[in-house]
Amino acid sequence: MNETTSEPGTPTIRFRTNRMEAFSDGVLAIAITLLVLEIAVPTAASANLLQAVIDAWPSYLAYFVSFATIGAVWLWHTVITEFLDHADSVFLRLNLLLLLVVAFLPFPTKLVADSLRSTDNERVAVTMYGVNLLLASVLLSLLWRYAAAKRLIHPDASDEDVVLLSQRITPGLGGYVVLIVIGLFAPTVAVFGYLALAAFITLPGRARRPSRAGGGGKPTS
Amino acid sequence: MNETTSEPGTPTIRFRTNRMEAFSDGVLAIAITLLVLEIAVPTAASANLLQAVIDAWPSYLAYFVSFATIGAVWLWHTVITEFLDHADSVFLRLNLLLLLVVAFLPFPTKLVADSLRSTDNERVAVTMYGVNLLLASVLLSLLWRYAAAKRLIHPDASDEDVVLLSQRITPGLGGYVVLIVIGLFAPTVAVFGYLALAAFITLPGRARRPSRAGGGGKPTS
Amino acid sequence: MNETTSEPGTPTIRFRTNRMEAFSDGVLAIAITLLVLEIAVPTAASANLLQAVIDAWPSYLAYFVSFATIGAVWLWHTVITEFLDHADSVFLRLNLLLLLVVAFLPFPTKLVADSLRSTDNERVAVTMYGVNLLLASVLLSLLWRYAAAKRLIHPDASDEDVVLLSQRITPGLGGYVVLIVIGLFAPTVAVFGYLALAAFITLPGRARRPSRAGGGGKPTS
Amino acid sequence: MNETTSEPGTPTIRFRTNRMEAFSDGVLAIAITLLVLEIAVPTAASANLLQAVIDAWPSYLAYFVSFATIGAVWLWHTVITEFLDHADSVFLRLNLLLLLVVAFLPFPTKLVADSLRSTDNERVAVTMYGVNLLLASVLLSLLWRYAAAKRLIHPDASDEDVVLLSQRITPGLGGYVVLIVIGLFAPTVAVFGYLALAAFITLPGRARRPSRAGGGGKPTS
Repeated sequence: MNETTSEPGTPTIRFRTNRMEAFSDGVLAIAITLLVLEIAVPTAASANLLQAVIDAWPSYLAYFVSFATIGAVWLWHTVITEFLDHADSVFLRLNLLLLLVVAFLPFPTKLVADSLRSTDNERVAVTMYGVNLLLASVLLSLLWRYAAAKRLIHPDASDEDVVLLSQRITPGLGGYVVLIVIGLFAPTVAVFGYLALAAFITLPGRARRPSRAGGGGKPTS
Repeated sequence: MNETTSEPGTPTIRFRTNRMEAFSDGVLAIAITLLVLEIAVPTAASANLLQAVIDAWPSYLAYFVSFATIGAVWLWHTVITEFLDHADSVFLRLNLLLLLVVAFLPFPTKLVADSLRSTDNERVAVTMYGVNLLLASVLLSLLWRYAAAKRLIHPDASDEDVVLLSQRITPGLGGYVVLIVIGLFAPTVAVFGYLALAAFITLPGRARRPSRAGGGGKPTS
Repeated sequence: MNETTSEPGTPTIRFRTNRMEAFSDGVLAIAITLLVLEIAVPTAASANLLQAVIDAWPSYLAYFVSFATIGAVWLWHTVITEFLDHADSVFLRLNLLLLLVVAFLPFPTKLVADSLRSTDNERVAVTMYGVNLLLASVLLSLLWRYAAAKRLIHPDASDEDVVLLSQRITPGLGGYVVLIVIGLFAPTVAVFGYLALAAFITLPGRARRPSRAGGGGKPTS
Repeated sequence: MNETTSEPGTPTIRFRTNRMEAFSDGVLAIAITLLVLEIAVPTAASANLLQAVIDAWPSYLAYFVSFATIGAVWLWHTVITEFLDHADSVFLRLNLLLLLVVAFLPFPTKLVADSLRSTDNERVAVTMYGVNLLLASVLLSLLWRYAAAKRLIHPDASDEDVVLLSQRITPGLGGYVVLIVIGLFAPTVAVFGYLALAAFITLPGRARRPSRAGGGGKPTS
């Protein structure tokens, strides 16, 4: 199981993936949980709390969209690391870039939640939001393609699985570009589009993981 | 120990459980720790800090109830993953839904803490809070039933243990429904009820875990 | 290494310690990192930022004391889990209580930071703070004693090590009681005392861990 | 692989590194993710959201610099723990000191973001920021040197790798000292310098890790 390509003397550094996974899980878990802090609590002094809570619907919508998106990023990230045998220093830097983009998401989320109520600035906020989502999608795709190109992938993974995953990791990109354009004209529609996109494009339905869950498993993770 | 049902060629993806556990631990740990941020600090300018601190009792009560509830969710989640052999993509999505609901809890917690002092809006806040707790309980139950139905459970687990856990994971649901109704008439009573419910219905007292702690253990976690 | 006391048929649940460790690490890491949010940033409008930054010294002091204390809790918690073979459901509940107390600490920390500048309310804030620290110390001690009494400890651990650790885990308690009393008369002195206490009473200097680091190791963690 | 220097009877405590890694990953992940909370969201009431978002550039700059720096600290920390066989209590304390300094970073980050707009107080804020970065770099270097001096390093690591890493972990220090001095005269230039420094000095390009990724791996992590 472990007779991987660890030629001694290779000049590049090979990292175990466990700390990269733990750090990524941490950042994604925190970003996804911080989102709730952005929902402004109606002041108790308000005459009608029920009305105030209902009026805050853009905050809930933004919460759900960002939660679904970060959740989808986490799922794809998990799929990638299931295939990963080890990491190199470029992969770790690309991963940090992805985390930078995802950790930034609470900021445009808040902008969207605020602006959906005051229709004036919707377009700016929703476009920023869409660009942020697009960047996350691009970096996730880059991460996978780099791992495939540099053979960081577990040797047990079949070539067809790798090809299949490479195909399936792409469609989100087109969707985000289309929705960014739609958002210039109909921002609220675009926000619901981002929700649908995150819900639909989450997991490859057909690709198979290298058979490690039941069998051997990486010793270091 | 590991000759699980990993028929090669199976079209569904089998995930190791370790990243799902790490991500869930992260989200639950952050949600439970963020609760303290919702306790408004009395301004130092207040003439009598002791009085101000005592007057903030609804904040402490809400803190304890939410902490106990998220703690109970974590305990049950740990019981489920102790039985789990592997996850599939539907399980991971159900788990994300559960995390979405739990990560949302600080928001109604804050509403309850604020409204218990201004008796006017108590009913709305406490009902929202109860529905959130009920949803968490429903999703936890769904997670377990899905795992049992799809045979994601470790093959060493005895059938009686699975049946026993299925029975014990239910009662919380009835309690939450009853308390939501009580909360419509006596909100403060319901909040104490939620505290008692979280304290009592935490762990199955009789179910036995598959004997992994002392023996083999999952290789991948 | 693994022929532990796992009599099949035992009615109590035996938990692997890895999720308890991960969840505790998460809560402690978040509590320790949230502390910085309590330091109020001087407004950029202030005529003299340097003076404003210097005037905020009670915030830095409170930050250091709480950081050192949570760090000490983490160190002791790590020592305990190094000895731990498995957990039971009571241990997990005691652990949740400890986490509840530690996760609450940012609140009195903020009170202390605010009140040290306005000398009026110092006594109330520092006493609350001290009681919180004392409770954390008591629960940490309880956790260890429960583990020792219920034989949750790794069978490789020598009896003398267990006795030694039981002796060394106590002194913090007396120190906190003394400092709480001192704090009633000289609050600022007590805060420096808490800093010294956290710095000194951190790790047992002589107790030996069961030899797992170099040798076998728990397979599941 | 595991016949390490675990002489039984050694009086110092040997810790497995997994909890230290998990706790450090947690603190670094939280600190890096909290940074986004420091970006003030322009109020929706502002006439021109686009202008307001553009005017907030110092916040984004400070976000990127601090993210890159904490990312670099995490990368170096991972390199160190890849070489680490076990920890002792002094190493854990040094590590806590490093975490204290890194967890403090969001505070001067906020100061820098605020002051870059009001040119008056730039110098104070940027100097505080630089000293914080320098301290992190010094502690990271100390951590490695202590591990090398006390032979906490995995016995498989070659001496040349250890020497090489000792050389490469130093240059950041000089850079920070120079930039602190530059910051006294040209604060904004220094901030861009910190960004460049974090981007460049991240990973040793030549040092080789002990061959564990493909081969054995530590059993306990």
